[in-house]
Amino acid sequence: MIYVTRKAHFNASHRLHNPEKSDDWNKETFGKCNNPNWHGHNYQLEVTVAGEPNPETGYVIDLGKLKSIIHRKILEPCDHRNLNLEVDFLKGMIPTSENLVKAFFMELQDEVNEAAYGESGLYSVKLFETERNIAEYCPNRAV
Amino acid sequence: MIYVTRKAHFNASHRLHNPEKSDDWNKETFGKCNNPNWHGHNYQLEVTVAGEPNPETGYVIDLGKLKSIIHRKILEPCDHRNLNLEVDFLKGMIPTSENLVKAFFMELQDEVNEAAYGESGLYSVKLFETERNIAEYCPNRAV
Amino acid sequence: MIYVTRKAHFNASHRLHNPEKSDDWNKETFGKCNNPNWHGHNYQLEVTVAGEPNPETGYVIDLGKLKSIIHRKILEPCDHRNLNLEVDFLKGMIPTSENLVKAFFMELQDEVNEAAYGESGLYSVKLFETERNIAEYCPNRAV
Amino acid sequence: MIYVTRKAHFNASHRLHNPEKSDDWNKETFGKCNNPNWHGHNYQLEVTVAGEPNPETGYVIDLGKLKSIIHRKILEPCDHRNLNLEVDFLKGMIPTSENLVKAFFMELQDEVNEAAYGESGLYSVKLFETERNIAEYCPNRAV
Amino acid sequence: MIYVTRKAHFNASHRLHNPEKSDDWNKETFGKCNNPNWHGHNYQLEVTVAGEPNPETGYVIDLGKLKSIIHRKILEPCDHRNLNLEVDFLKGMIPTSENLVKAFFMELQDEVNEAAYGESGLYSVKLFETERNIAEYCPNRAV
Amino acid sequence: MIYVTRKAHFNASHRLHNPEKSDDWNKETFGKCNNPNWHGHNYQLEVTVAGEPNPETGYVIDLGKLKSIIHRKILEPCDHRNLNLEVDFLKGMIPTSENLVKAFFMELQDEVNEAAYGESGLYSVKLFETERNIAEYCPNRAV
Repeated sequence: MIYVTRKAHFNASHRLHNPEKSDDWNKETFGKCNNPNWHGHNYQLEVTVAGEPNPETGYVIDLGKLKSIIHRKILEPCDHRNLNLEVDFLKGMIPTSENLVKAFFMELQDEVNEAAYGESGLYSVKLFETERNIAEYCPNRAV
Repeated sequence: MIYVTRKAHFNASHRLHNPEKSDDWNKETFGKCNNPNWHGHNYQLEVTVAGEPNPETGYVIDLGKLKSIIHRKILEPCDHRNLNLEVDFLKGMIPTSENLVKAFFMELQDEVNEAAYGESGLYSVKLFETERNIAEYCPNRAV
Repeated sequence: MIYVTRKAHFNASHRLHNPEKSDDWNKETFGKCNNPNWHGHNYQLEVTVAGEPNPETGYVIDLGKLKSIIHRKILEPCDHRNLNLEVDFLKGMIPTSENLVKAFFMELQDEVNEAAYGESGLYSVKLFETERNIAEYCPNRAV
Repeated sequence: MIYVTRKAHFNASHRLHNPEKSDDWNKETFGKCNNPNWHGHNYQLEVTVAGEPNPETGYVIDLGKLKSIIHRKILEPCDHRNLNLEVDFLKGMIPTSENLVKAFFMELQDEVNEAAYGESGLYSVKLFETERNIAEYCPNRAV
Repeated sequence: MIYVTRKAHFNASHRLHNPEKSDDWNKETFGKCNNPNWHGHNYQLEVTVAGEPNPETGYVIDLGKLKSIIHRKILEPCDHRNLNLEVDFLKGMIPTSENLVKAFFMELQDEVNEAAYGESGLYSVKLFETERNIAEYCPNRAV
Repeated sequence: MIYVTRKAHFNASHRLHNPEKSDDWNKETFGKCNNPNWHGHNYQLEVTVAGEPNPETGYVIDLGKLKSIIHRKILEPCDHRNLNLEVDFLKGMIPTSENLVKAFFMELQDEVNEAAYGESGLYSVKLFETERNIAEYCPNRAV
């Protein structure tokens, strides 16, 4: 099994807030991440595809194609955007890194699987919210 | 001459917008950085003090003290904040990296100069808005 | 399964030495890492928690709480310390990166599991002794 | 299970080209990576060994020995070389990152397994072709 | 004086060789960098512009425009190219980092100065050949 | 003027302590850096040489020779050593980063100037004690 990874970056604003809860609960739970005037991040994204390389090309997936898919499906809707207000596939979701990686995985899955060789497919999506805070969604790893 | 530098990080939202100009001018000039719903960054800050070390301590400035000054003067007002709306010393300013480094320098100058040894003093403030976009204010460098 | 990671840093001195062996064996085995006057490192630590996010918060674990646990359990006893002489839970152990990651995992496990949501729990501890030398303890990964 | 990793670097030139296909197919498939005058990279390599540490040394493998094996088996033949023309164990192979990590794994396996303690052995080889394009071969991971 | 910097990356092959000297002199002088089959690098470029920000925009130079100029003048001719054979403005030059930074500066100067605000202009070009080998051309710095 | 830089790394233990002062003064002044059982760092060193390139080689200095000089003059005496006890040219000095960069500059100066082309010579020595704490000695910069 070979794993290929492409990194990408985007900048966005967000706010952690659960609208079904009181303002006090939100302030207590999310602290300064609950700031109603928003804050933001330089997000770094790592998308990994796993499988066997095509013997004719030596590619599990053409990383140029993977870059284009990430650009169209994630960066175009999210870059320089407000993740709470402006991204259709994130509507109604608290934009924690945990929720973002799962949503990005779902968004990327079909096109990535189609572009990858043979049985190869999307394996994991990892997001660095800051250099020190990271989340990864990797649904098929055996623990 | 010895130069000592302390790095710090903060996350904030902002928007590039000149309120004295039309919406069209702003969109044309600032592009996606003009998004009215804000975007944000993980800012990395580098503060440099230049001078001679105190012979008793070997310090140009105690970097623990420099860290505290940066924290109180810059990180407390700016971290997880909206740079257009919530920071007193940035009011009325377009928060480009160029304007931020000059404003941070002015804000830090007195306390840093007082904490530094002898004639040593604040030399430059450098800000990484992203890994690829950087601004530095260094008023006393001989070009 | 979602994996969230928090990074932390500490500086410490250590020495690789097995007191049950001769000085010659130690010099031969550990080379310059056996220096009786110690050497040291800027250790970078990555702590990963795996599980499902709490639907009310979107958090597998509050990374602020994880940061506090890492600080209290690892950084307070280890930062700016001698890992051979001054850390209770490392007593009697050769402080290789392999032994450190296992000891840190054991030290963190109970509090991290309690702070994590539902069945989520501590998954791995990774330590960068230098930029080029790394160890990870990950007892439940299926190979 | 403990995983220890050693990083290494080398610089090389290469070209993606399948000699069994037409020039047009190659240009279409590999784009600028097909340039007949070559291009090159600063490759970063990460070699991971998994197993139990030797209780006498605390080492899964002596990272100094692992460094030497990587140097002799990979860096000496590949550093400042043309990967298409000058490396015996890559002959007849399209030097994509996917093919390189598998070839490096095969090349390292015997000596690393012999140098590692007990049942420990080579676990994965990861290659950064650029900061943003990465491949990993990890044949025994349970998916 | 404010300094703004934009980073960019490209991959290229090259060879250090002085055609006016003997093969022996070249091998002795340039060692493995003289390999006739080429080697290559992931070059990282930093372009710095110095001056005063435009009060209407807060920009010394629009970094989007600077990015475009770097792309057209440097990355298009150099990325995935052979620096000895394929770049017009490098013809007849030994492509050491020292010579590259000076040539890049000359190539960028006119367009950057025109795009920068008022008296602002190109200040320095810095090139990372590897993470450890760096050259900078900064003709107007007062030593 | 062209500036070429070579990076190097070493690991060492140290302690900040002025033996002419009381233990209380030392604890108050240096805090946890005064720990009598030592602590340590992965030091990153950047050595810069400034001047004109030799037209025959395109080199201000052969970076392979600069690497060797740094290795022999700094890394051999300092790597895996105790900077207070084991380095002759640091004897009697409080090993702050400020004092280290000046001492390293003095130690490197003659051999670097001799190896550099023509009037080129050692320009600055920069030391990263941690990723966030940095000192530079650059005696000839015009402020």
